[in-house]
Amino acid sequence: MTPDAERPTPVVVQKYGGTSVATGERILAIADRIEQNLPHTPRLVVVLSAMGSTTDELVSLANQVSNRPIGREMDLLLSTGEQVTVSLLGLALQNRDIAAVSLTALQCGIRTDGVFNLARIRSIDTARICAELTAGRVVIVTGFQGINDSNDVTTLGRGGSDITGAALAAALGAEACEICTDVDGVFSADPTRVPGARLWPEISYEEATEMASSGAQVLHPRAAEICREYGVLIHVRSSFHLREGTWIRESGSIMERAEVVSVTSDSKIAKITLLDVADKPGLAARVFEDLARAGINIRLIIQSASSEHQGRITFIPELEFLDGVRVLVRRWEAEGLASRGVIESDVAKISIVGSRLASTPGLAARMFAALAREGINIDCISSSEMKVACVIAGDRLDAATRAVHREFFPEDEAAAASA
Amino acid sequence: MTPDAERPTPVVVQKYGGTSVATGERILAIADRIEQNLPHTPRLVVVLSAMGSTTDELVSLANQVSNRPIGREMDLLLSTGEQVTVSLLGLALQNRDIAAVSLTALQCGIRTDGVFNLARIRSIDTARICAELTAGRVVIVTGFQGINDSNDVTTLGRGGSDITGAALAAALGAEACEICTDVDGVFSADPTRVPGARLWPEISYEEATEMASSGAQVLHPRAAEICREYGVLIHVRSSFHLREGTWIRESGSIMERAEVVSVTSDSKIAKITLLDVADKPGLAARVFEDLARAGINIRLIIQSASSEHQGRITFIPELEFLDGVRVLVRRWEAEGLASRGVIESDVAKISIVGSRLASTPGLAARMFAALAREGINIDCISSSEMKVACVIAGDRLDAATRAVHREFFPEDEAAAASA
Repeated sequence: MTPDAERPTPVVVQKYGGTSVATGERILAIADRIEQNLPHTPRLVVVLSAMGSTTDELVSLANQVSNRPIGREMDLLLSTGEQVTVSLLGLALQNRDIAAVSLTALQCGIRTDGVFNLARIRSIDTARICAELTAGRVVIVTGFQGINDSNDVTTLGRGGSDITGAALAAALGAEACEICTDVDGVFSADPTRVPGARLWPEISYEEATEMASSGAQVLHPRAAEICREYGVLIHVRSSFHLREGTWIRESGSIMERAEVVSVTSDSKIAKITLLDVADKPGLAARVFEDLARAGINIRLIIQSASSEHQGRITFIPELEFLDGVRVLVRRWEAEGLASRGVIESDVAKISIVGSRLASTPGLAARMFAALAREGINIDCISSSEMKVACVIAGDRLDAATRAVHREFFPEDEAAAASA
Repeated sequence: MTPDAERPTPVVVQKYGGTSVATGERILAIADRIEQNLPHTPRLVVVLSAMGSTTDELVSLANQVSNRPIGREMDLLLSTGEQVTVSLLGLALQNRDIAAVSLTALQCGIRTDGVFNLARIRSIDTARICAELTAGRVVIVTGFQGINDSNDVTTLGRGGSDITGAALAAALGAEACEICTDVDGVFSADPTRVPGARLWPEISYEEATEMASSGAQVLHPRAAEICREYGVLIHVRSSFHLREGTWIRESGSIMERAEVVSVTSDSKIAKITLLDVADKPGLAARVFEDLARAGINIRLIIQSASSEHQGRITFIPELEFLDGVRVLVRRWEAEGLASRGVIESDVAKISIVGSRLASTPGLAARMFAALAREGINIDCISSSEMKVACVIAGDRLDAATRAVHREFFPEDEAAAASA
């Protein structure tokens, strides 16, 4: 026996998202894919999301019976979605005589800090998963959920299945965490908006995190952080075929090759401007404390120091939180914190992401010029180490994305046009 | 303080079935009912079934992905149904500021023998439930399910939520197990078929068990057995109002008052007759072993000893198992066990139940005479200590039920007719 033969086969973790498990047919397609590739991945852990429609139906039922469907019981309710998909995939594999076992977060010991609706994974007791893998079974795990110290279900928030996948890959010392999705990998722009978008063979964890936080549907930024911390490779790839997608790895930065990795577009935002905020210390803090306490995700904050915009605070929440924002704005107005809150929902955000942005001011200027050439007005700008974001009119988003992408990826656009 | 004040308030267990939790509105109605009655039942444990439609949808999904949706993963899948209803009722109560907590079988320690799809409850660790009750919460428990020693979900079979209710009532030393349903209690016949059916204020456990096994939708016979063994009162009542229904108790036998307690009708049966079964020992045993191994519930077995029907075995399975029965019949024919198997699905069964049947042969004769007066042919007859059952043509069931009920309850029929 060679030493190689004694080395245990590495574990692979595969995560499939909502569109990949949307119907019985799609679940059968995943079973096909697993069966086909099983010789190469004999020790396989599969993490599943809920069917998209299931979640919607459950939320609708919850709204029928309660004005504030949150907290412990909401997590118990929503967690049934993943329990359904893992059971179905288990049945589908067993029907092909592939040994498989479906496990809930409780059954595979995913412990969280106990915050309902937005928990963080604290630890994973891998004993059961390892025993099942050793027994030769494909292990199927419910994404998005964990349990607290009282064995109550706690969910991880939107996109939480990515986090489950990453945390399991880290805990199991997996060879890779595969994010199986409905696109072929990570692109230089959303390929449904920009036909010439380039598929990257690899990017770095930081680039992935930054792209995810700027609205690209790559993977949950915390999943990238966890994998970076534990040195787990991420492979973002299609759930429809077995061709390679995009590898995310430490050495995978394309910063020496590309000035801009991605042009991301995000139409699901709103813009709030608070006027005449008194110049008292603590007022801005109060605004963002209130938003945080209401669980409202803020994508961007702009507090202009110019005299013209004195006392003005602008912030960009995700569109789905708009109702909650409205309530807060009315309260701030009533309390005299601001004279008025202007709410705009017909806005969008376009960003460029790249490791060299901060050290290359010319890149931001090229973005602004490309928008100007299209006659697109820039409403406000925010920039960070690796990102420049512009808020523009919502109905110009596609034109803006194509123009900026053409500026940074002229050869891809030309190839797409001649193809 | 009087000694009475120190006695702990008794626990009440309430079970609500599928039609009572069928929609968000019906769940709100249960929340209303609980709120209204809470002063009288401060220590309340509620057991819920799944929404009927949910179970159908889950079974349909399972059939899409597998030819044999059974076993461990099927139980994990089906158990989401009760998880949904308990979460929703929890949200609905919390929305009215009633403290409530929803618990799965695992969270409230319902341990079973581990047989998937048809488990038996072995023990209940009531620690969590008692702690929640002491904290002043309404405790809502998933019916129909338990867990085995590996924390895998095991379901209790059809009607299993009744068993959960009874077992919880026994384990908690509850004052009563209330079976809340869509009828007002236990009747002398199905009130939808027989308008003059009489509502019993009380019956005995044996009568309830016998009625349930003969097709009346009273409650699961095992639930009655468990409550009898542990001396727990059962109260079968409406989930639509708070009027009293039928009490089931040891002293509650109406045998000294009524010769017949119930005329039950069951249209969901089939009839199989095996012809020319060889007169060899063990062949009949073989037939019923095969049926048991295929999980097919048999309601009645008739093996005639008359020379005319020599070598004939007749049995009455529940209609839903007909496909499985067909497979077995073809196999027996192929193996020469019988010359032919005749399958009839247009049959029905009518039974009378009463404690004095065995000792009063005249009662069975009155039943046969009532059927004869209606011109209804009796296909075959089976009788036991407390029951006489006749198989008749399916399309005569309603007429038969009304005729036999009129024979034994003439005054109720007269009252209904003049009302």
